[in-house]
Amino acid sequence: MTTPAWPRLDGIAYGGDYNPEQWPREVWDEDVRLMREAGVTMVSIGIFSWGLLEVREGEFDFAWLDDIIALLHANGIAVDLGTPTASPPAWFFAQYPDARAVTKDGVPLGFGARGMVSHSAPEYRTAIDRIAGALAERYGDHPAVVLWHIHNEYGVPVGEDFSPHSVRAWRRWLQDKYGSIAGLNAAWGTAFWGQHYEEWDHVGAPAIAPSTINPAQKLDWARFTDEMLRECFRIEKAAIRAHASQPITTNFMANQHHGVDLWAWADEVDIVSDDHYLWAADVEGEIGLAIAADLSRSVGDGKPWILMEHSTSAVNWQPRNVAKRPGEMARNSLSHFGRGADGILFFQWRAGRSGAEKFHSAMLPHAGTESRVFREVVDLGGKLGRLAEVQGSRVEADVAVLWDFESFWAQDLEWRPSEDVSHDERIRAFYERLWRDDITVDFALPGHDLSRYRLVVVPSQYLLTARDAANLTAYVAQGGTLVVSFFSAVVDENDAVHPGGYGAVLAEALGVRVEEHLPLREGHVTGIRVDDQVFAADVWQEDLVVTTADVRATYTAGPAEGRPAVTRNVHGEGVGWYISTRPDADGLRAIMREVYADAGVDVPATPAGVETIVRRGTDADYLIAINHDTREVSLTASGTDLLTQADVRDTLVLAGGDVAVVRLAHTAPRGDR
Amino acid sequence: MTTPAWPRLDGIAYGGDYNPEQWPREVWDEDVRLMREAGVTMVSIGIFSWGLLEVREGEFDFAWLDDIIALLHANGIAVDLGTPTASPPAWFFAQYPDARAVTKDGVPLGFGARGMVSHSAPEYRTAIDRIAGALAERYGDHPAVVLWHIHNEYGVPVGEDFSPHSVRAWRRWLQDKYGSIAGLNAAWGTAFWGQHYEEWDHVGAPAIAPSTINPAQKLDWARFTDEMLRECFRIEKAAIRAHASQPITTNFMANQHHGVDLWAWADEVDIVSDDHYLWAADVEGEIGLAIAADLSRSVGDGKPWILMEHSTSAVNWQPRNVAKRPGEMARNSLSHFGRGADGILFFQWRAGRSGAEKFHSAMLPHAGTESRVFREVVDLGGKLGRLAEVQGSRVEADVAVLWDFESFWAQDLEWRPSEDVSHDERIRAFYERLWRDDITVDFALPGHDLSRYRLVVVPSQYLLTARDAANLTAYVAQGGTLVVSFFSAVVDENDAVHPGGYGAVLAEALGVRVEEHLPLREGHVTGIRVDDQVFAADVWQEDLVVTTADVRATYTAGPAEGRPAVTRNVHGEGVGWYISTRPDADGLRAIMREVYADAGVDVPATPAGVETIVRRGTDADYLIAINHDTREVSLTASGTDLLTQADVRDTLVLAGGDVAVVRLAHTAPRGDR
Amino acid sequence: MTTPAWPRLDGIAYGGDYNPEQWPREVWDEDVRLMREAGVTMVSIGIFSWGLLEVREGEFDFAWLDDIIALLHANGIAVDLGTPTASPPAWFFAQYPDARAVTKDGVPLGFGARGMVSHSAPEYRTAIDRIAGALAERYGDHPAVVLWHIHNEYGVPVGEDFSPHSVRAWRRWLQDKYGSIAGLNAAWGTAFWGQHYEEWDHVGAPAIAPSTINPAQKLDWARFTDEMLRECFRIEKAAIRAHASQPITTNFMANQHHGVDLWAWADEVDIVSDDHYLWAADVEGEIGLAIAADLSRSVGDGKPWILMEHSTSAVNWQPRNVAKRPGEMARNSLSHFGRGADGILFFQWRAGRSGAEKFHSAMLPHAGTESRVFREVVDLGGKLGRLAEVQGSRVEADVAVLWDFESFWAQDLEWRPSEDVSHDERIRAFYERLWRDDITVDFALPGHDLSRYRLVVVPSQYLLTARDAANLTAYVAQGGTLVVSFFSAVVDENDAVHPGGYGAVLAEALGVRVEEHLPLREGHVTGIRVDDQVFAADVWQEDLVVTTADVRATYTAGPAEGRPAVTRNVHGEGVGWYISTRPDADGLRAIMREVYADAGVDVPATPAGVETIVRRGTDADYLIAINHDTREVSLTASGTDLLTQADVRDTLVLAGGDVAVVRLAHTAPRGDR
Repeated sequence: MTTPAWPRLDGIAYGGDYNPEQWPREVWDEDVRLMREAGVTMVSIGIFSWGLLEVREGEFDFAWLDDIIALLHANGIAVDLGTPTASPPAWFFAQYPDARAVTKDGVPLGFGARGMVSHSAPEYRTAIDRIAGALAERYGDHPAVVLWHIHNEYGVPVGEDFSPHSVRAWRRWLQDKYGSIAGLNAAWGTAFWGQHYEEWDHVGAPAIAPSTINPAQKLDWARFTDEMLRECFRIEKAAIRAHASQPITTNFMANQHHGVDLWAWADEVDIVSDDHYLWAADVEGEIGLAIAADLSRSVGDGKPWILMEHSTSAVNWQPRNVAKRPGEMARNSLSHFGRGADGILFFQWRAGRSGAEKFHSAMLPHAGTESRVFREVVDLGGKLGRLAEVQGSRVEADVAVLWDFESFWAQDLEWRPSEDVSHDERIRAFYERLWRDDITVDFALPGHDLSRYRLVVVPSQYLLTARDAANLTAYVAQGGTLVVSFFSAVVDENDAVHPGGYGAVLAEALGVRVEEHLPLREGHVTGIRVDDQVFAADVWQEDLVVTTADVRATYTAGPAEGRPAVTRNVHGEGVGWYISTRPDADGLRAIMREVYADAGVDVPATPAGVETIVRRGTDADYLIAINHDTREVSLTASGTDLLTQADVRDTLVLAGGDVAVVRLAHTAPRGDR
Repeated sequence: MTTPAWPRLDGIAYGGDYNPEQWPREVWDEDVRLMREAGVTMVSIGIFSWGLLEVREGEFDFAWLDDIIALLHANGIAVDLGTPTASPPAWFFAQYPDARAVTKDGVPLGFGARGMVSHSAPEYRTAIDRIAGALAERYGDHPAVVLWHIHNEYGVPVGEDFSPHSVRAWRRWLQDKYGSIAGLNAAWGTAFWGQHYEEWDHVGAPAIAPSTINPAQKLDWARFTDEMLRECFRIEKAAIRAHASQPITTNFMANQHHGVDLWAWADEVDIVSDDHYLWAADVEGEIGLAIAADLSRSVGDGKPWILMEHSTSAVNWQPRNVAKRPGEMARNSLSHFGRGADGILFFQWRAGRSGAEKFHSAMLPHAGTESRVFREVVDLGGKLGRLAEVQGSRVEADVAVLWDFESFWAQDLEWRPSEDVSHDERIRAFYERLWRDDITVDFALPGHDLSRYRLVVVPSQYLLTARDAANLTAYVAQGGTLVVSFFSAVVDENDAVHPGGYGAVLAEALGVRVEEHLPLREGHVTGIRVDDQVFAADVWQEDLVVTTADVRATYTAGPAEGRPAVTRNVHGEGVGWYISTRPDADGLRAIMREVYADAGVDVPATPAGVETIVRRGTDADYLIAINHDTREVSLTASGTDLLTQADVRDTLVLAGGDVAVVRLAHTAPRGDR
Repeated sequence: MTTPAWPRLDGIAYGGDYNPEQWPREVWDEDVRLMREAGVTMVSIGIFSWGLLEVREGEFDFAWLDDIIALLHANGIAVDLGTPTASPPAWFFAQYPDARAVTKDGVPLGFGARGMVSHSAPEYRTAIDRIAGALAERYGDHPAVVLWHIHNEYGVPVGEDFSPHSVRAWRRWLQDKYGSIAGLNAAWGTAFWGQHYEEWDHVGAPAIAPSTINPAQKLDWARFTDEMLRECFRIEKAAIRAHASQPITTNFMANQHHGVDLWAWADEVDIVSDDHYLWAADVEGEIGLAIAADLSRSVGDGKPWILMEHSTSAVNWQPRNVAKRPGEMARNSLSHFGRGADGILFFQWRAGRSGAEKFHSAMLPHAGTESRVFREVVDLGGKLGRLAEVQGSRVEADVAVLWDFESFWAQDLEWRPSEDVSHDERIRAFYERLWRDDITVDFALPGHDLSRYRLVVVPSQYLLTARDAANLTAYVAQGGTLVVSFFSAVVDENDAVHPGGYGAVLAEALGVRVEEHLPLREGHVTGIRVDDQVFAADVWQEDLVVTTADVRATYTAGPAEGRPAVTRNVHGEGVGWYISTRPDADGLRAIMREVYADAGVDVPATPAGVETIVRRGTDADYLIAINHDTREVSLTASGTDLLTQADVRDTLVLAGGDVAVVRLAHTAPRGDR
């Protein structure tokens, strides 16, 4: 059997999670009729149905699933078939109480929510092999099933597990990694605080302790946790592959959960899919959305991906669940599409009456078809139906921003110099600058081949191995422009400070040495002078020793007053910038203008609040334009608006809140380095 | 034996909790002498004395209790005799460690505070039957004992219990309720998140879990917890009734604890009694007090009740325990009295030197008799002594505010649209409006016969069954005025969204449909326009579809800008108002003025800061007037001030901070619908 | 063997914690070379090395320790040899899992940090006896070893232990203390809330409970916890004394941890040593430092002490770890020195690359020798080298501030009248006033002989026994000036309110009675009038009944408006002041001016921001002057500046941020009472 690279579907997939098991049979017919009205082409089913499919251990009941798949198929709706392994049934935990995940306080988690299982438990692994295999055997050649959807959001709601099963697996994993206990002692630096080990069996999980646990141990624990989940994925994948050839995915959570290393996971799946939800408190949620979409595309090496879940309006699990405003759902969907998503799905088709998520919006809300939301869902189905030709086209970027889950894991450990320093915040700040400048961005690992990028941004890369630092240094030497934010390159893969001091591994590329961190007190705002302008800066300063760099900004106040704040270093053919503080948005704009100039990155003249992305196809390029503002704007473009079929001659006029997808008359200009 | 409806006491009961066991014998004589000086007529004793009465299992020592009861009786002080079952002794837990309550994390609670028992434990139930029976056998015919006081503040400090005893009882309770496991699956909606059950033994308590527990399960858990406590009450009541005929009570906590359903509890007791403590951070604590008093009266169907505990001055368990100012204790006491309390008792008679509550004020404070507090206690005893004729009279109200513990329980569950929405807050806001307008209020359940009320207020009734909604609709149809606040009528008895969408069950009465909730971001203040005035409004908006209603206010900003905010619907003979946001106090006043007009409710011309209530007796009506302000005010009234014996001719002059109880010359006017 | 009073060292000891076990052998030679460059004279070693010294139970490997001690000795660097008992090795816990400390929730603490042991566990006590004995046997006569350093920071990170071992020890400890269970019942007031005990075996630890635990029980628990730690210290001390005669210490945490009673501990050690770290959020951290130093000196009865740990720059465990500014480390060190420290040591010599404290500064930072920090370390070593003659001189004070750990423990219990009242805050406020007035202070217990002080300040002494109150009253009667802050003298040694009411035991000395506490609402600022000035005051008022006192300030607002706020009472030969609220800094200054006048305490004319202390030697007095300001200042002094060898004639000029140590030409004037 060979696995196709994309589900057997025409055009852009459209649909959502569908839970017929929550509804009486008579509702199913209405569902399918309304799906057709809305232009739905694919639904995800079975994701939380284990207990209804395997009612007792080894005793299966597929009748209802047969029925619904047949009904969908008869109506031309394809099926993304879930394995229900994210939520084992009540009988499983009754039979195998030791297979429950345990908190760091030693409390086994209870039933009644979802996802309480120990992924290291042999009984769980046996059970997922059985149910995934049984599903694949039955539906592996069903014409309706075009995609397999393993599990749900690995690592959420719980990834860490301190059960005895997990501790045993952890010791095995450490033995495999280190070979000798001496190796572990060296890597973890156990001479500190008397943590030396003589026996593997003395090594425990980083559970509750009287003080801060060894950070190298916790970093390895994060790696181990991620890998236990991935081992489970592989078991299911193999069980499915034994019977089925459709592509296999699992839904990621991109920038909304850092527990799993999506670069590694993307290697395991046939197709990347992602769940994304706006953070309601953020009035510019579209920027976080763009990060999620670009990251989903980037981990999959630029291949088309599927937006497996987002929401038509409000979610239910945030402190205040703000509803989307008219047109917002379409703008969100088109932004994902523009950034490479060839499937736009929602959680969920029909709003459930019961359970923890009853207040989550749906394609068919509690208010029914006579509602703004359903009308917009139908409209969006129509829009996506006109975009079939764009399927398979690619996004290209001149700029990369580093995103490394290992560095997240390390930086999120305790006892850092300042709790005001946040990896996430720095990424958002730099990404936001680029987004406002309408510059398309890829995410990358520091060890990647970066030569295709004009500019590489390192918003915060606390953990940077010497090897990756050498890669970044070579990138600069060979003509790249690198911009590095403070508190980067501090530790190696064992969370040990690099010999030579903070940032020593990037000293050559940046032409500076960080003598001392100077975290600022809470609320202490200082300033930096860039040429003749002064900008506010807070959270952090550093005591920099400039070696080969030029000073581009100095501190106007604070502990490093009068000393270098921002430096620029010519190294080989390229340039390395270092920003040792947190400038405000205007300050960052001023610095990045210079950085762009070094990198040869042009800032397009896109109106404020408007987002454009180009997808490049075999035969044409497509401009996706989204107006987040309420005013009408004009953009320069020529071609055909696929949504309206209108001719666009030189000027694309976009009403407030509107979107357009233009098949360009000419190929869009390409960045060239 | 027949149970009298009221203790054998003359006039208004006055006294407090009395703990002679904390003091040497010589203090008792002083106590009794000072009680007489203060006009004390009844004290509550024995509430925390289990270990001193049953020193080892089945081994009783009643000698000291005999003594103190005899001493009190000799001095004409009646006894409210407590059963000590709120705090089992150390030997009980040593002998039955499994009878300890267990936290949701699985930790058994320890000794050293109080109330750590599992109310489901068979050993506890045996023990309370034995001690209650032994007390009743000994004191059932003692002439001093006029009232039985079972347990103390059921549900506080802990009601929930996740012990194995409790889980076993829970499964039995669920079997009784649902009959079949299929019934449970349907009611709880277990198809969501894969929570389906095949066996009763797989159903657990809603203990610690990785995510939000099934809300219907948690709602049933709240009902179960309440009923376990009530079962224990019934065991003690039966044990007492076997030997004694005095009335039986247990002290409620009215609006200060929502864990038990006081409507159900009031059916179990012979006399309602309540504990009330001011919330010190609230500078208008008298409003919360009035809510407590009206609720205590309402759950007991208007019958006289006993204020079992309040404080002479500060309490000890709040963040900042503010002392009462001169006269405040009397105003508090008279407000309870005005709202139907025929007993005014305190925690506690004499301030205890030791233990967790040593900083709680008392009738006899640490400072002794030479103190403001003791002088005011003596004065209050004198005042109450002059009010004997009022005993047994009743309060009547034209307005009812809904108060439903089930709706509290459901709304307090997790993952609601906005954490800024509070049932409590809405009740207080509407009640406060009515209090400032000096309109007397009953509380009621939505299923009650409401026909005697001109106006029914629904401050927030998140859970409203279809049957109760029909009752409210009929109330309107038959001429009532109903005012409903947002986020009402959302779910049914299983926390499932009503078919037809939010509020569908009240659509006929209100003439609107709620298409979508529009929670506002934190701190987002919008506005509503009522006629030509604009008022601030925050927290919430809704997307309303008006069917038969008139729009009485529109949104001036926010997601629903320009759309309906407040509506008025004529339905049958009555009117249904809907307020879809949280207006500020001025906005609510403007709306309620119109509502009063519809309902024919008059707003008396009472000066600001003054509270009046009328109690109606067989032979006369009584005006209780309380001046919370510091300025002298005048009220229209004629009759005799019972406190001063002064004639009141047309005008009652009330000094700043003063109180009056006037036997009215004429019957007060009655609301008539 | 006789124990010398001070280590065999010349002059002021200088150095830090040294962890050669964290580094390869080749680094050791560089370390020792740089130590010599920096003027290091003593290092602390072995503190966290148990697992490397006793690799399996009873199996020792001293080779590496032999080597490093030999290397240090060869280079003239003395050794403070640690026992590693603060962090038992992994094998210990694997072998004796029951020797783990248990949280109040019943969770045994895990390995991976440090300090998780039960100090009550017999196995732990056996093990510390063995390792301490083995070290002493081997190094007891080593010429390099000049000091023994037992354990590390007793009570940190965890002192409390709810394990079965601990509960058994607790019951034995209570039996020893009370003799009979009746005694315990009386002391704890167990009649309250039904906590009566009949059997010792029914008494438990104050673990998790449904409400507030008996406060007398918790107070005894704090005493017990402290004594368990001290018992372990005594075991190690005896094991060392069997083989070694060098002085023995353990490092305290002075005002930064209240878990152990340093007055009792100081009786156990030969030399007091202390760890002190600035609290970075405090912009005047030098005041907290001075408190720590004065407390360290005071608990040791004025004898020279050792600053065992402080930091060269930032620490790593605070929310924001602010680096020290140039010169700050020297000012800190000299302030400790001025206040009696004859050893100035740091955590740590060389910054560790791994582990939880890698971001803690060191004498040799990550940046290496080419750094501001190392240069200042070398400079400080030079300065201290010039101060040898000051060693052994003493500080004298005319003013004592009470500091009683028992009162801390009691006041920190739950359910106090206001959570805004803080023992720590009151101590800081009064100490800060004295510090700004450049008045040198001792700390003292209320039971001490206070006759040598002109003024005794009682910032908050919630727990004050009748006996100690009598001591304070006698102090006043005999001519002393006493100033007492609110919420003092409230309870006795069992946390029971004194008979007669709050503060009754000081009524004679103060001439007032506290009728009622009047805590203020959050943010409520009132005022006091002192003569014709009004100052702000918040948090607290009291209802005072003045007996023999004069009223020196009245309340201008709040519940006690118009009533006495501050009183002054002549009693015998002395004066007792009472301050019943929290005045602002200006108000406290105004009051303290009058207090100083009563006491005959002169306020020197020291410029603002400058701190001076005098150390009195056998042959000369020494003025230590520290300029915390950035401006140059002049002080009156004559003699020789030991740091510069410059003559000082009448005027000592001190540059901004600079320090001086002047051998005074004439003896400094002495306070005389």
